[in-house]
Amino acid sequence: MATSTLTKLATRVRYDILHMTTEAGSGHPTSSLSATDLLTGLFFGGTFRFDLDHPQNPCNDRIIFSKGHASPLFYALYAAAGVLSQEELLTYRRMGSPLEGHPTPRFAYAEAATGSLGQGLGIGVGIAMNGRYVDKLPYNTYVLMGDSEVAEGSVWEAAELASQYQLDNLVGILDVNRLGQRGETMLDWELETYEARFAAFGWHTIVLEDGHNIDAVQAAYGEIDHACGRPTVLIARTVKGKGVSFLENQDGWHGKTLKREEFDRAVLELGPIDLNLHGAIEPPVQAVPAVWAPVPVDQPVSAKALSPREAYGRALVDIAPTHPGMVVLDAEVSNSTFAATFRNAYPERFFEMYIAEQNMVSAALGFSTRGKMPFVSTFAAFFSRAFDQIRMAQYAMDRGNIKFVGSHVGVSIGPDGPSQMGLEDIAMFRTLVGSVVLYPADDTATTALVRQMADHHGICYMRTTRQDLPRLYETGEEFPIGGSKTLRHSDDDRVTLVGAGITLHEALKAADTLAAEDINARVIDLYSVKPLDMATLHKAAAETAVVITIEDHYAEGGIGEAVAAALSDVATPVFSLAVCKLPMSGKPEELLAYEDIDAAAIVRRVKEL
Amino acid sequence: MATSTLTKLATRVRYDILHMTTEAGSGHPTSSLSATDLLTGLFFGGTFRFDLDHPQNPCNDRIIFSKGHASPLFYALYAAAGVLSQEELLTYRRMGSPLEGHPTPRFAYAEAATGSLGQGLGIGVGIAMNGRYVDKLPYNTYVLMGDSEVAEGSVWEAAELASQYQLDNLVGILDVNRLGQRGETMLDWELETYEARFAAFGWHTIVLEDGHNIDAVQAAYGEIDHACGRPTVLIARTVKGKGVSFLENQDGWHGKTLKREEFDRAVLELGPIDLNLHGAIEPPVQAVPAVWAPVPVDQPVSAKALSPREAYGRALVDIAPTHPGMVVLDAEVSNSTFAATFRNAYPERFFEMYIAEQNMVSAALGFSTRGKMPFVSTFAAFFSRAFDQIRMAQYAMDRGNIKFVGSHVGVSIGPDGPSQMGLEDIAMFRTLVGSVVLYPADDTATTALVRQMADHHGICYMRTTRQDLPRLYETGEEFPIGGSKTLRHSDDDRVTLVGAGITLHEALKAADTLAAEDINARVIDLYSVKPLDMATLHKAAAETAVVITIEDHYAEGGIGEAVAAALSDVATPVFSLAVCKLPMSGKPEELLAYEDIDAAAIVRRVKEL
Repeated sequence: MATSTLTKLATRVRYDILHMTTEAGSGHPTSSLSATDLLTGLFFGGTFRFDLDHPQNPCNDRIIFSKGHASPLFYALYAAAGVLSQEELLTYRRMGSPLEGHPTPRFAYAEAATGSLGQGLGIGVGIAMNGRYVDKLPYNTYVLMGDSEVAEGSVWEAAELASQYQLDNLVGILDVNRLGQRGETMLDWELETYEARFAAFGWHTIVLEDGHNIDAVQAAYGEIDHACGRPTVLIARTVKGKGVSFLENQDGWHGKTLKREEFDRAVLELGPIDLNLHGAIEPPVQAVPAVWAPVPVDQPVSAKALSPREAYGRALVDIAPTHPGMVVLDAEVSNSTFAATFRNAYPERFFEMYIAEQNMVSAALGFSTRGKMPFVSTFAAFFSRAFDQIRMAQYAMDRGNIKFVGSHVGVSIGPDGPSQMGLEDIAMFRTLVGSVVLYPADDTATTALVRQMADHHGICYMRTTRQDLPRLYETGEEFPIGGSKTLRHSDDDRVTLVGAGITLHEALKAADTLAAEDINARVIDLYSVKPLDMATLHKAAAETAVVITIEDHYAEGGIGEAVAAALSDVATPVFSLAVCKLPMSGKPEELLAYEDIDAAAIVRRVKEL
Repeated sequence: MATSTLTKLATRVRYDILHMTTEAGSGHPTSSLSATDLLTGLFFGGTFRFDLDHPQNPCNDRIIFSKGHASPLFYALYAAAGVLSQEELLTYRRMGSPLEGHPTPRFAYAEAATGSLGQGLGIGVGIAMNGRYVDKLPYNTYVLMGDSEVAEGSVWEAAELASQYQLDNLVGILDVNRLGQRGETMLDWELETYEARFAAFGWHTIVLEDGHNIDAVQAAYGEIDHACGRPTVLIARTVKGKGVSFLENQDGWHGKTLKREEFDRAVLELGPIDLNLHGAIEPPVQAVPAVWAPVPVDQPVSAKALSPREAYGRALVDIAPTHPGMVVLDAEVSNSTFAATFRNAYPERFFEMYIAEQNMVSAALGFSTRGKMPFVSTFAAFFSRAFDQIRMAQYAMDRGNIKFVGSHVGVSIGPDGPSQMGLEDIAMFRTLVGSVVLYPADDTATTALVRQMADHHGICYMRTTRQDLPRLYETGEEFPIGGSKTLRHSDDDRVTLVGAGITLHEALKAADTLAAEDINARVIDLYSVKPLDMATLHKAAAETAVVITIEDHYAEGGIGEAVAAALSDVATPVFSLAVCKLPMSGKPEELLAYEDIDAAAIVRRVKEL
């Protein structure tokens, strides 16, 4: 496309940015204007290849607005491409409109939700890894980043992984407009420092001194080398608010919209605007995604009970033949989480993500947006490192189909001490809308629940216990999501003990002790922490005098509160035994006793009541 | 100290590392051995300056083992310094011993808890900022890092801030032993790549080709320039397991201890060991910490009710004269959180931490370990970015005296959409042992609660509403932590409505509507979400037929579950109105209605019951 046409398109994009934000009364026009020429060039200059009629065409290039607050630009580009009308644009930020304040997949062309800064490049890493190593398709992935957001460490996690995996199908576009929300960025317009950083992280760098010169922009895209074995970053000097004299390079205009009279002035400055002018986007290079047909691996059932974490690794191998969309990611602890069992069987679908949990989760989301089902494992405690990324994955809606598995849960891991103990993972994953939280108490349950997770579309979390736990269930036992198992019951149960994982075994021991003293206790295995088996819990509450929950997790947001809330409409009291004191190093049994969550503590509590 | 003596000390340190881990049966000897010569040189070669008798001497240099799993080395150094006996060393990892699996301040020489990798440099940044800008003392801060952990983005957040603040009193020691937990690191022994990365992030770099040559180690420390305006990193090639032939550079030995017979063989290899040999540590350079005596700023009470976030900024200014230990940190959104109000009044105690929340929290912990009281603010949603750092701060025990303040909470922020909505912050901060969680409903309460937080030693969190909220309380009203306010009550209340923040106002409106229909509702302002006012809640449960909680937060781990758990022993039913559907952009009032947490929804729910 001729430079003059691209320039005209950029002008119409600018008009739409100003128009929709003034109409909405909120939004980020100046952050959009700085990247307008870069993105207009990308979309309509022949670099970006996309089938607008089929946004899920697997061969499409992908674009992620990591600086999600530049959403007016994002939507204006699709208006310029002819797939959004002026009327639709003016629904920006209104309730029910797909054009949200920050992009989400309610808008069909948004790959994922952005708006928490520094996450887009990691999503791009996952999409690019999928293209290179899984689907084996020639598409490219572009990520628009702001300069403020590269202060986020997650950007550098993504950067190092991208070069480690030689993702030359990944392109970052860095909009260096010098101004953050409340003033100057750390690096101002020091393009050479950005260049040195990305180069040191193994990237091919292209520096563009004027990100508003359409010819220079086009020339820069021409320098991208998709065969150089390195990801590329285009580092462009831009002007925040570009195109409107009283906005350009001015502090104090971040996240502010123009009043009507300011808008009118701005439009006069833009010059002639042709809303009938549309740009064409190149179609994608068509190819066929690779098909994975893993050969089943024979894994006889172990005679000896395995730890849940070990059972997890074997279960991954078991399900591969029926779940060819799966990929497995781990943060440099696969020998502890037992994801290594899968890696050994199917190395082509295992990705080492090193000790960079934020990027691991964002990359998993990237895989997931491309229709893959990532299993993502690390120590449960370390998922807290990526809570923001996990939180954002839910806003990707049905594109966030990720299975999280956290090992080393609870004080019962023992001598390694509190830094390694997952004690808030249930609380964290329960907050997600529609999430599933599972907690198996033996290897049979683990195996069954891995398959349940794989067959359930959406975000799931499973916590796996480090220790060998006695086997409670025979092979073939079913564990539906939302179910529970009642392991002890009688017609005259006086108390209900609700456990999961390691505390279920303590509850069983306590029930045996109590039975010897003629106190019958019902024992429930609450393997599905979310959703809860409401019917069984209500029945137990109706049939016993008291319900006691026991969990190797902090009290807040854990099993106890979940059950208390579920039973808040019945008169039966619910008591919680949970981790309430700051833990320390020690032997597992010492720590369970210290926190009053072992069998002896349960017996004591029952007798008190 | 002579090289020969340092060498002998290193040998004794190696012996202790092996001895204590073999005795404990767990731990990380090989990760300790790789850094032994680097740290022995640092401690006893005259570089590190520390008053062993007074670990809290403000002039002491500080050392942080960011690779916390090298704790055997950490403890062995203090044994070599003469402050730990062999008997004490052999309590390593035992219940009740200060020598935990990963260091915590139960050991007096540990500055903070480490063990979640990649956090030590950020803590060091805070300590170094304190030395340079607050206490104005000549101490230096050293951080031992592993090569695997610099994959964590938090390291690069710390690196960029350290150069931004010209922290030439900060020294990183990078132990490049090439092997992570499950195999090779991304960069193997590519010292030049590490060097390029730190140099690009503005650091003075020193490369040491043999981190086991004591003379070379000493020479490298001699190259540190504490007046160059840049932090220094010493990048050392080391060998994992150094000193024991069958451990050196071997994969598969991470986190494994020697069996007794292997230990005996290893000791033979080490050669003569002199457990009576102790090293001397240079005393600190004595100086007097700067005193801050802020001049009070006159801020008349606003006639108009302010938003809680705006009241927060003013309250910070109010408390400064009585809290000269305070510092204020913000992640590039101070004009939104209103931390800017403090910055404008007292720029010398305000630190811009840019969009790097993980490092902001770690640095706050660093300030806190030096006796300062950091107020740390960003959008509530973005504290999820630093959950791991927040989690680790609690394990610093009484050194973790941080006040977190999150703005932009709930769906009621409106058009910006879900990425910007804090909806899991209460759940997150409630999990911390001993934490305080506050949620003011007007500007008076905000002002009072900021002072409460400042006067309470420990981790506190306050969520501040974005909108202007009507003023409910007169100046001078007291808001003790653990209290509540009953704003509507009568002798025949039929229902209790528990709200906080914006939903309290909805509850009040609902109560008015219900009153018009002769349904009396008690209304409680639950401004202290943790700890709860148990007496008032129990009284309300006893005196009304039903308790309804209303919150602009996800149901899980929020106010509803906290209250349900608190009232789980009484028969009165508790119902929760909370955010349960995936939110979107919209007007605040539309979103409150959509989530069924506005006055109309409360009235509907009461009538249903």
